Amino acid sequence: MARFFIAGANYKGGTAIIRGRDAEHVQVLRLRPGEDVVICDGQGTDYKCRLVKADREEAEAEVLEVVRCPAEPSVKVTVLCGLPKGDRTDYIIQKSVEAGANEILFFNARRCVARPDEPEKKLGRWQRIAEEAAKQSGRGIIPQVGWAGEFVDVLNLAIHRDLALFMYETGERESLNQVLEANKQIETAAIITGPEGGFEQFEADLARVSGLHVCSMGERILRCETAPVVALTALMYATGNLA
Amino acid sequence: MARFFIAGANYKGGTAIIRGRDAEHVQVLRLRPGEDVVICDGQGTDYKCRLVKADREEAEAEVLEVVRCPAEPSVKVTVLCGLPKGDRTDYIIQKSVEAGANEILFFNARRCVARPDEPEKKLGRWQRIAEEAAKQSGRGIIPQVGWAGEFVDVLNLAIHRDLALFMYETGERESLNQVLEANKQIETAAIITGPEGGFEQFEADLARVSGLHVCSMGERILRCETAPVVALTALMYATGNLA
Repeated sequence: MARFFIAGANYKGGTAIIRGRDAEHVQVLRLRPGEDVVICDGQGTDYKCRLVKADREEAEAEVLEVVRCPAEPSVKVTVLCGLPKGDRTDYIIQKSVEAGANEILFFNARRCVARPDEPEKKLGRWQRIAEEAAKQSGRGIIPQVGWAGEFVDVLNLAIHRDLALFMYETGERESLNQVLEANKQIETAAIITGPEGGFEQFEADLARVSGLHVCSMGERILRCETAPVVALTALMYATGNLA
Repeated sequence: MARFFIAGANYKGGTAIIRGRDAEHVQVLRLRPGEDVVICDGQGTDYKCRLVKADREEAEAEVLEVVRCPAEPSVKVTVLCGLPKGDRTDYIIQKSVEAGANEILFFNARRCVARPDEPEKKLGRWQRIAEEAAKQSGRGIIPQVGWAGEFVDVLNLAIHRDLALFMYETGERESLNQVLEANKQIETAAIITGPEGGFEQFEADLARVSGLHVCSMGERILRCETAPVVALTALMYATGNLA
């Protein structure tokens, strides 16, 4: 069923008004009065609606049912990735949204090759990728995509989550399984992964002394764009959000 | 450390001979005598070697240690995907190899848009993607990529695995968690996912009566190139191969 994200303000007396780009999209999809659509407020609530009007400028839909969006996971996960090169960001955003991330933030790690002053220019495009993926996968929110800043900002953000995982390829690490099995009831989490060259030892040490769980994902070396999606999937599986 | 796949026949008296394209690669990487490399036989065994000669035509390495490749998972998983359009195949291959697949096969499902007579032409390119991903992620084998044929061939293949998962988006399904928790000791598995349009109801019914586990991965709709990687990751996590 076609899915639209429209902020709550448009709902009046059991009627949802669809304007602008979304109204054009109704036209593109050739949706006609009588057909059902889902309008999501972007806050986790789905309005199951039936179209009563569909013009180019404006469509109108009667609200049939209001439900909590079933696709939203019970855990709000912030995915934090050392800024990778090129379009790897796009892949991370799209797949993390599908896998259930609450927000996706990039940051500047020591081995980042991509320049940290470029991301701001890309925020608009990144957010559109997230919106598209949210619509396609039936999410109840449009996950926020953004720039977290420097590595210390990431640590500061992560320590305020119920669980913070720092994915690291070498040295002393905890088992991801053991950490996740011991943290099934969390409500918030952070997953931190590195750029192409991985993290420096001192970054892992800082994460550890900050109380983050420095974790292994086994002996296979994952690409920087694969690691966050694999870690997020494991967390979603372990917390019962993949069933 | 640089990693090469060379079939076992080249090892003689504790010496590995690197020829052809691999010898050129040694040159490209500017590896010199005295430097260490890993030569894998593609059967799960790693030979830790030290270069003693590095010419354009041939390099020679002394075998220091022979170990079982630690990156190989305990479960041999066959990933079976309804042939998707365009370069989604490439993504499925690369990410499935990273995530630990033993082989990746495409097949013709009812809703496949891609023509089933095209795949054979692409096998060479697909296999090179698998080889590249296997080297990069430190695998002990180069997972086989191939064409499984029609849907019935897939069923026939899947019923001979210890566990066969059929990922389906709607209707009566088992919980992926429950199925995986009940099957932690498996040695072989098949994961079956659909093309862009998903499976037809009759395909899911056939899978069910054939004894496959028709499973849900939650309420988020995953793209056809995301679903196999997410399912494979969940299986690897559940069987202790992601720690």
